[in-house]
This record gives sequence, structure tokens and C-alpha cells, in this order.
Amino acid sequence: MTKAKIGIVLGSASDKAIAKKAGDMLDKLQIPYEVTVASAHRTPEDAAAYAANGEKRGLMAIIAVAGLSAALPGVLAAHTSLPVIGVPVSAGTVGGLDALYSVAQMPPGVPVASVGIDGGANAALLAARIVALLDEKVRQNLEDLRVEQAEKVRKSRSTLELPEVPEEAFK
Amino acid sequence: MTKAKIGIVLGSASDKAIAKKAGDMLDKLQIPYEVTVASAHRTPEDAAAYAANGEKRGLMAIIAVAGLSAALPGVLAAHTSLPVIGVPVSAGTVGGLDALYSVAQMPPGVPVASVGIDGGANAALLAARIVALLDEKVRQNLEDLRVEQAEKVRKSRSTLELPEVPEEAFK
Amino acid sequence: MTKAKIGIVLGSASDKAIAKKAGDMLDKLQIPYEVTVASAHRTPEDAAAYAANGEKRGLMAIIAVAGLSAALPGVLAAHTSLPVIGVPVSAGTVGGLDALYSVAQMPPGVPVASVGIDGGANAALLAARIVALLDEKVRQNLEDLRVEQAEKVRKSRSTLELPEVPEEAFK
Amino acid sequence: MTKAKIGIVLGSASDKAIAKKAGDMLDKLQIPYEVTVASAHRTPEDAAAYAANGEKRGLMAIIAVAGLSAALPGVLAAHTSLPVIGVPVSAGTVGGLDALYSVAQMPPGVPVASVGIDGGANAALLAARIVALLDEKVRQNLEDLRVEQAEKVRKSRSTLELPEVPEEAFK
Amino acid sequence: MTKAKIGIVLGSASDKAIAKKAGDMLDKLQIPYEVTVASAHRTPEDAAAYAANGEKRGLMAIIAVAGLSAALPGVLAAHTSLPVIGVPVSAGTVGGLDALYSVAQMPPGVPVASVGIDGGANAALLAARIVALLDEKVRQNLEDLRVEQAEKVRKSRSTLELPEVPEEAFK
Amino acid sequence: MTKAKIGIVLGSASDKAIAKKAGDMLDKLQIPYEVTVASAHRTPEDAAAYAANGEKRGLMAIIAVAGLSAALPGVLAAHTSLPVIGVPVSAGTVGGLDALYSVAQMPPGVPVASVGIDGGANAALLAARIVALLDEKVRQNLEDLRVEQAEKVRKSRSTLELPEVPEEAFK
Amino acid sequence: MTKAKIGIVLGSASDKAIAKKAGDMLDKLQIPYEVTVASAHRTPEDAAAYAANGEKRGLMAIIAVAGLSAALPGVLAAHTSLPVIGVPVSAGTVGGLDALYSVAQMPPGVPVASVGIDGGANAALLAARIVALLDEKVRQNLEDLRVEQAEKVRKSRSTLELPEVPEEAFK
Amino acid sequence: MTKAKIGIVLGSASDKAIAKKAGDMLDKLQIPYEVTVASAHRTPEDAAAYAANGEKRGLMAIIAVAGLSAALPGVLAAHTSLPVIGVPVSAGTVGGLDALYSVAQMPPGVPVASVGIDGGANAALLAARIVALLDEKVRQNLEDLRVEQAEKVRKSRSTLELPEVPEEAFK
Repeated sequence: MTKAKIGIVLGSASDKAIAKKAGDMLDKLQIPYEVTVASAHRTPEDAAAYAANGEKRGLMAIIAVAGLSAALPGVLAAHTSLPVIGVPVSAGTVGGLDALYSVAQMPPGVPVASVGIDGGANAALLAARIVALLDEKVRQNLEDLRVEQAEKVRKSRSTLELPEVPEEAFK
Repeated sequence: MTKAKIGIVLGSASDKAIAKKAGDMLDKLQIPYEVTVASAHRTPEDAAAYAANGEKRGLMAIIAVAGLSAALPGVLAAHTSLPVIGVPVSAGTVGGLDALYSVAQMPPGVPVASVGIDGGANAALLAARIVALLDEKVRQNLEDLRVEQAEKVRKSRSTLELPEVPEEAFK
Repeated sequence: MTKAKIGIVLGSASDKAIAKKAGDMLDKLQIPYEVTVASAHRTPEDAAAYAANGEKRGLMAIIAVAGLSAALPGVLAAHTSLPVIGVPVSAGTVGGLDALYSVAQMPPGVPVASVGIDGGANAALLAARIVALLDEKVRQNLEDLRVEQAEKVRKSRSTLELPEVPEEAFK
Repeated sequence: MTKAKIGIVLGSASDKAIAKKAGDMLDKLQIPYEVTVASAHRTPEDAAAYAANGEKRGLMAIIAVAGLSAALPGVLAAHTSLPVIGVPVSAGTVGGLDALYSVAQMPPGVPVASVGIDGGANAALLAARIVALLDEKVRQNLEDLRVEQAEKVRKSRSTLELPEVPEEAFK
Repeated sequence: MTKAKIGIVLGSASDKAIAKKAGDMLDKLQIPYEVTVASAHRTPEDAAAYAANGEKRGLMAIIAVAGLSAALPGVLAAHTSLPVIGVPVSAGTVGGLDALYSVAQMPPGVPVASVGIDGGANAALLAARIVALLDEKVRQNLEDLRVEQAEKVRKSRSTLELPEVPEEAFK
Repeated sequence: MTKAKIGIVLGSASDKAIAKKAGDMLDKLQIPYEVTVASAHRTPEDAAAYAANGEKRGLMAIIAVAGLSAALPGVLAAHTSLPVIGVPVSAGTVGGLDALYSVAQMPPGVPVASVGIDGGANAALLAARIVALLDEKVRQNLEDLRVEQAEKVRKSRSTLELPEVPEEAFK
Repeated sequence: MTKAKIGIVLGSASDKAIAKKAGDMLDKLQIPYEVTVASAHRTPEDAAAYAANGEKRGLMAIIAVAGLSAALPGVLAAHTSLPVIGVPVSAGTVGGLDALYSVAQMPPGVPVASVGIDGGANAALLAARIVALLDEKVRQNLEDLRVEQAEKVRKSRSTLELPEVPEEAFK
Repeated sequence: MTKAKIGIVLGSASDKAIAKKAGDMLDKLQIPYEVTVASAHRTPEDAAAYAANGEKRGLMAIIAVAGLSAALPGVLAAHTSLPVIGVPVSAGTVGGLDALYSVAQMPPGVPVASVGIDGGANAALLAARIVALLDEKVRQNLEDLRVEQAEKVRKSRSTLELPEVPEEAFK
């Protein structure tokens, strides 16, 4: 079993679907990862320890997934020098706006990288861009994915059942 | 029957589910409570009287549950010196943002303790923290609950069906 | 010197004015208090230790003042069973809406009592209502303040320099 | 001295400027009015009594001016069958959005007529439209004001110092 | 058939349910009314004519129901001196916040009385308070309704299936 | 087959329903159009080329449909001098508010014409108003549609099953 | 004097600065324009007539500038088939968010092209893109402006007094 | 002169102060950087080229600073596999909320790391955490900074001129 390069921390097991989206993307990019649950409020010591141990355990980034008053990404960032990527979750009644504010609006001195609301896959891609700085294979996988995404967009054109644009319009 | 220490007031019987969540938590913590309906707008005299009578009836805190222009917590707080905990409810079309503003943004001089939108259980926990100042058993119950919650978080880790984090990462 | 019953924690010394408003109100109500700075992100261990020591040091409530992604109140609440009162601060460019969300929208299990944005004085009054449960003098001071506030409102009527309402209209 | 037909209630004397704008408009429309301060939270009994006495004192509408968690209009409406017009005030840090929600989002059964944020003059005009149902002179004054406003708009055209639109464009 | 005292104008027939709620309340209060559809944007002349004819046709108030960029209440108010009550509708994807702004934030000079989002019944009650100034029976019906509402709140207490508050707590 | 005058670009094939609404309206107004998918982020070169080729290919306007951080309309506008109409889509959890901001709040120098959230049909009508400047038939179709819409509003009056307004009220 | 191709309508003379920004841009692009004041609420007939006369007077687009409940663009659009460009103004206390909603969220059937808050210059540029469809000189001026803007951006690089990026990085 | 490891791109030279904050932090951490201006809308080719050249020029991350409809970070991310950090700027009238949405709410497939509004220094710190994965000196500088920040918080305690917390409360 390969050692995890990315750690995914959920504030609550109920956010499992977001971790799954992140994990699927990391699998696709061939980046080993691990997933756990550690709450900034219910198991703060676990959260702190996990972050503090991250570097020596070989992690290159931590993805923190949390809703409502999403303190988890910031709390992790406070205990490590690794890049911490926060995923605000739309867990409450205001569409995740609360979590977006909590994740993005960090005070000066302790940075968190916020992706979009429920953005598990993008968090994985952001982590992959960091890993790619050191790992040529991952960099290549990212390039391949980019090509694949573009192809997918282009192929979707013929599925619309609406008057199509001729190919030369894109040249 | 034990005398209620916490009074829960609903602005409308339609918010019964929130009262139930608060009541279940108080039951768990062994704090006697009572629940009623009293509208700041439809039965303002009842609301005022209930708040004014609270201290001499032995209440230690009042939990007020209301949606929309949630005036109830403030109106209760205006008629008592007991701590009043407001629970904004997501009753309308804007996810409870209206109620959150109404509950939290009290003018200087009359405080209300706002918890999160639909946060019945947290209102009960906040009330319990107040009761615990005077009641060692409740204090112990709170400590036990904290341990229980942490355990529940830790146990949930193995339910994710995603690559697990080894135990030593939390040490 | 009297032992502090209320601890006020600022996320940043730049929020000193809010602490001053809270302190002035506590002075007026004759409740001893103490003020410190402890950041959830820059000195998380200090914040945790201060909260964890609160009960045995004789505190009855902690007031936590923070702006932006205001994690401080929640982080303190995670380490104590004392009631924690959060004051969201309008430190950024969105009028404190970010901090209000962060303070109020706590996940289930760890409650914070949010007052209004920049509501230092109301946080003190809420703390005083808690102290008053155990301290008859403070309870009396709160009653006196209530009378004083009402008198102040009534006296302000004659300062408007607009057509006045006759006294009997209030009977 | 003429008996007031419109009562203006401020939640705080600090909102005096809004009362002044309302009063100036009522003066212009020749509607007698009175102004007072009565807080929903600091002098709730005064607020309730003033509203309850309104009809028999000859009031035709009450204008309630309040900021933050602006409970005043609703509390007045709860104690009278007179139309209550609420003016949300931009007293806090979120531009009066809190007060707008509190004033407008009344629960079913107790209506408040909200005007715009800081809309003292429009509150007076709304009150005047109600008075005009019974008072031909006020109705005429409103018609005159409408003509005057239109003229003012038209005259302002030549003050722009930008290429003007010829008169026939409006025919 | 009695002549309508209240005119209800829908910006779109799709808002019929809101008109029904208003109509039911007016029926209950024995106030004759009429309902139509007239769009500020698709039939602006009809909207203008309806408003301009209102007074001589015996209307005492107009209720205007509209969603999205809800211009209808303002457009009607521009063509009459009758009180215009606006009902912002949650027709789009932002919960009616767009309509609330459009209805409430009228520029100085042309007032609209905004009720809450989707507040058809409250619009009827506000209209009834205006009618009651001239109609003793309606005034009495409003008083009766107030008593009925209070009774309904009180009766709902025993339906909660949670520990009840004793009657004396409200005295 | 007629040459397209309006190009509709979707940021994602998942927004097909919005393109359909726009296309149906353009069909009705007899304006030839074409639809494609080109992402500002996944196929930026395609988006740029399509916009740059628009004028010489005979397009008179481009409709760009995008959700979330809706960069597509601005990116197209950056590569053409044709009018670009942006349709913000309610694709995420905040009702399209994110896309509305992204589409409307363009920096000085590169304009985008934003219509409402999910406003595919209105985007088509706006495009038609531009085409009508050069095409008398389209202008006539727009006039006919306006009459048709007004008739539809008027006919809907009799479907309400509520007390109707007499015809003369609109004269 | 050349006949105006663009009509700029202000809801209030207080928005003169926005008209000036639009006018300056139109001057620069050599598009004749005219400016007036016509309120949707205070002079609705003028607004309607101006819009209805627009086509036969030779206008190609109308720019409507309004704050708060900004009904003007929609009201103009209801009376013409010309493209109407709305400029929401930050006139109130919520930063123009109210006006943005009112301008952008038009109901189906009557389109308005919203630009950003206070976006006078972009409104002019959008109008110019429409005019350019028929006027080669304006089209050329737009192309020139685009080049000029790019040059301005590039020249600004050397004004930053921070480590510069070498030229080849852009190739 | 050392080769830049971090590229800072401003959407407009008016955001120079944010670049300065980022640059000062990078200087302090001894990370070479470069700053330029490249608009997603006015110089899209420059922006694309700069991003595409980033990797081979030795950059490890790009910081993109933009306000309003802040497309720049996303446009850069579309042309590189480097991590892109977006700084939403409070350039308009809504406190940067528009830019925060535009930067954070990226569609799936192209990630951007959003920091808080106007968060230039935190963007630099996030970039530094990435650089530290490969550069032990930078990692050490980050650790030193963390200690320094904690010391600064602790020292600020004695500057409050309010009752101090004894040292043992933090143990």
C-alpha cells in the first residue's frame, strides 16, 4: 500500500459524499490519499494532532471539508505548515454561504485555500497541482485530464439537439 | 414531577420539531423543562407574563424559538433578567436568514443569546452550560456527553469505506 | 483584587474597543472580569488552555470577540463546559456578516451564544444575566439598569424638538 | 393646537433625523402629528400602551422607526388595529438589511407596512394616503405634491450640462 | 353584489395562490374585493388605468402581488393616491429577496407598503386596518380575529406532546 | 439553411434547457441561431475563437449561458466587439447569485449585458431587439409578440376563479 | 448638431455623474447621444412617451440609470422594442444590490440588459457594440479602444515599483 | 537576481496595494517573486501566455488579484497546471462579495484556491506553504513566522489597559 500524499479530513461523517468525490479524482490522478473524520469542535485534539503530524507522515496537502461555521480548515492550518484546502459544505439552510465565509475569510497569518461550495473534486485537483510540482507522473495525468475535459466539452456539442455550430467557427 | 429549570417558548406550534430536539437533549442531560407556545405578536401579554414570572417560578434560562421577523426572544428578554436563548427558525423562503438577523442583532441594553438556524439541540446545550454552573450532576452529564460525542466522531471513521488514516496520526 | 468571574478573549488586540465596551458594562454591574488576547489560529494552545482552565479558575462565562472567519468562540467552547458568548466583529469589508455566520452557525454539539455584530455591551449584559443566577447583587444591578434604561428612553422624548406626545398616551 | 392624526414612534432618540424627515413631509401635507421614543425592548409597556391608546386618541396610523432587530413596528401592531408603518433604519454595519428583514417579514396575523430603509419621508406619504381616504384637503395636497414632484423632475433636466432631449420626445 | 373596497392586482396569473390567501382573509373580514391580472411590463397601460381609476371606483387600497423585479406595486402607486400594498413573491431562485428589495426600496416620493415575502394574508389584514378606519364592522371583525388568533395560539399548547407550562405562568 | 444571426454558447451541456428556452423564442421570432458548448475554463481557446470569428460569420449577438463563477460571457466579450448577452444560471447552491454577480459586475472596458437568473427567453428577446434594428420582419414579430403577451395577461384574468374586475376599470 | 443615437435616461438628476461617465465614453466613440431625467414613479408618462418615441426619433438603444427599486429600465423596455440597457446605481445603503436585483431580474417577456452597479461607461460600451452593427466607424473606434485599453494595461506594469515580469513571459 | 518562484498578476494596476502586501510577505519569507498586470478581459492573450509559460519559467504558484467579476484567477488556471491562488478584491460597492463568489465558485475541473477578500498577505503565505514543500529554508521561515506571530499576540495582551489575565491561565 502506498503512503498517502493527501489527507482528507471531514468535520462530520455526513460529508462523506464530498470526500468520495475528492477521492475518486485523486484515484484517477494516481495520488494516494487517506480520509478521516475529525471535528474542530468535538475532537479538537485529534484535528490538531493530525495536522501537526502531517508533514512528517509525508502528506503534501490537507483537504478539510466542513459545513456551517466551518472552523476545521482554519484549525488544521493553525497546526501545520502544509497547504490546507478548505471545502465549504452546503450543510445548513443558507446554501453553504455560512461555510464559504468561514473557510475563505481567514484572518491574516493563517492561510486556507478555499474552493467552491461542495467542491470536493476541485479540492482534489488543487491538491494534485501541488503534488505535480514534485511528481512528473501526476503533472502528466493533470495534462491528460485537461485534454480529456476539453474533448468531453467538444463531444457534448452534438448532444444538444439544437442547431449546431460548424467546426470552422472555432478556428 | 420535577420543577422545570428551562422554559421553551415557541412562537408557533409549527416549530414543534425544534422544541422536540431541544427537549430530547435536556432529557438526556437530566434537566427538567417545560414547553409552551406564546407569540410576540398574537399573545404578547402571555409572552411578557411568562418571561416576567420566570425567575420566581425557578427557571434558569428561557429558550425562545421563532422564525421570520423573530421578535419573540427579544420580547421575552425585555421582561426578565434571565438569560434568553433565541433559536432562529428557517420558516420562510430565505433559509432563516431573516430570523437570524432578528434574533442576533438586538439593540444595546437587552441581550439575546442566538444559536444557529434551527439549532434546537445547541440551544439546549447552551442552557445546560448555564444550569451546570449550579448543578454538578448536569456539569458531569455535559462532560460525559462531550466524551460520547468525541467517541462517536472517532467511530464514524471506519464507516466511510475510503482509505483510512492510521491511529498514530492522531498522537 | 477580586477574582474575575467573566473572561473576555479577543482574537486580536485590534478589537480592544469592543472589549472596552464589555468591560465598562461589567464594571457598572460590579462583576469582576479579565481581558486577554488569544487567537484561535495564531495561539490555538493558549486559547484551548484558557478555556479548559476557566471553570477551576472561577469563571462563570467567557466572552469571545472575533471578526472575519471568527473561529475563536467555537474553539473556546470546544475546550470548556462554561457558557461561551461570541461577539462577531465587523472587521472586514462585509460588515461583519462573515463573523456573524461563523459565530452563530455552530455545528450540533458545541453551542456558542452569539450576540449582535460588535455587540460588546450586550455580551456583558448576557454574561451578567448568567452571573445573576448566583449573585443577588448583580441581579439587583441588572434590575436597576433596566429601570435606568427605561428612564433614559423616556427622558429622551423631550430632546427631539418635534411635536411631543402627551404623558397620558402611555397609560 | 390640532390633535395628532399620525403618531411617530422612534425606537431610539438617535433615529431623530428619520422622524424629522417624516415630520417635514407631514407638515407640508398639513397633517398633524406627534413624535415620541418608545423601545420595544427597553420600554415595552410604553410601546404597548401607546399603540393600544392610538385609536381612541384619534390616530389614523402609527409610523414606527427602528434599526437592527427592529421589533418595534411589530410590537406596536400587536397592540392596535391601526395601520402600522415600519421604517427600517440603517443603524448597524449591514446597511439596514437586518432591520428590513425584521420589519417586513412579519408572521401571519399581524401586518406591518414596511417602507424602504431610512424611508422617513415615504412613511409619511404612505400615512398621508391613508389619511386622504377621509380628508379631502390632504388628498388634494397629495395630488399637488405629485404635480410638484413631476415638475421638479422635468426642471432638473436642464441642470445636467449634458446634451438635452427635445421637448417633443415626451409627447 | 357589493362594490369592491380592495383591489388585488397580480403581476402574473401564476401568483393566484397568493391572491387566494388575501381573498380568503378579506372574505373572513367581510370586506368586498376584486382580483385581476395586470403586468407592469406586459400591460402597463392597464396597470396605470386601473390604479388611476381606483379612487373614483370606490377602492380604499390596492394590493399588488409580484415576483422577481417586482415593479408592479410601484407602478400602481405612481398612478394613484390610494395606499398601495406590495406583496413580494418568491417566484425565482433567490427566495423572493429580489422582489422584497424591489417592493420595499421605493425612491422618495412614491410610497409602497411592503409586507413579507408571499404575505398575501398579511396584505389583506393591512388593507383591513385601513378599511377599519371608516368601517366599524370591519374594525370589530379585526378585533374578533385578534382574539381568535390568541385563542388559537393558546389552544395549540396542549397539542405539543411535550411537558406543559401551568396556566399560572401566564398571569 | 439560413445563416445563424445569434450564437448561443453554453458553458456546460448541462445548461441545455436554458438554450432550449432561448432557441424556442428565437424560432418564434424567426431569427436563425446556432448553439454550442464552449467553456471559459475547459476550452478557453474555442471560446475565444468562436467570439473572434463571430462578426465575420455574420452573428449579430452572442448569448452566453453559465453558472457558478460564470466567466464565459466576459471571456467571449473580451474577444469580440459584438454585443454579448450573459445568462447567469442557478447551477449551484446559492440560487444563481454567484453567477449573477459574475455576469453583471464586469470591470470597466468590457461590457456584458446580463439578463436575469436562468433567463434564457429574455436573452433571446434582448438579442431580437438588437436584430430588429436591422430587420423589419423581426421588429414586426416583436411588436406582435408584445400584443400577444398583453392579450395573454388579459385572458388570464378570467381563469382566477376570484371576484373579477369589470372591464371599464382599465379605461 | 447630429441626431442622438443613444438616449440616456436618469431616474433622478442625482445620478448625473453616471450619465457623465456614459456620455464621455460615447463622445470618445463618436456616438451622438442625449440625456434626460424621467422617473418611472414621478413622471411615468414622460418615461413611457420617451421610450415609445425612441425608434421613430432614431435612437438605437436606451440607457436607463436608476437606484433603489430601479423600475425605470423595465418601464422603458415595456414601451419600446429598442434594446434597453439598465445601470443599477448604488444609491441606498446596501451598495446597489437592491438596484441590481431590480434591473436584472426582469420577468419573462420584457428584457433589460443589466450592466454592473454604477457601470455608466460599460453601458455606453454595450450601446456602442449595438451601434457598431450598423456603423463601421464606431466599430473601428471600438477596435481602437480595445487596443488602447490593452496598451494601458501593459504600460501600467512598469508603474508598480515591484519586481517586474520580463517581456518574454507573455509570448 | 534570483528567478521568481511566485508570479503575482493584478487584474488592474489599481490593486497595487494588495500586491505590495503579498510581496512584503514573500520578501520576509525569502521567496523571489515577480508582479505584473494582465487583465482577463483587456489583455486575455497576455494572461493566457503568462500562465502557460509559468511552469517552464520556474514558477511554483501564481497569485491572481482581481475585483468585481474576478475572472482572472480562473482564466489563469485554465492555461496552466500550476496552483493558482485567487485574491478577491473589494473594488466595487458590495464589499468584495462579488469577487469572492467569482473566485471561489469555480466550475468542476479547473480549481482556484481562494483566500479572503483583500487577502494579499495570506495569499503569499499560502504560496509559501507550497514552496516550503520543496524548500527547507522557506519551511523554516514559515515556522519562525508562526512563532513570531504567537509572540506578537502574547505581547499585545499587556497593551490593552484592561484587567489582565494571569500567565498561569494559559498552562
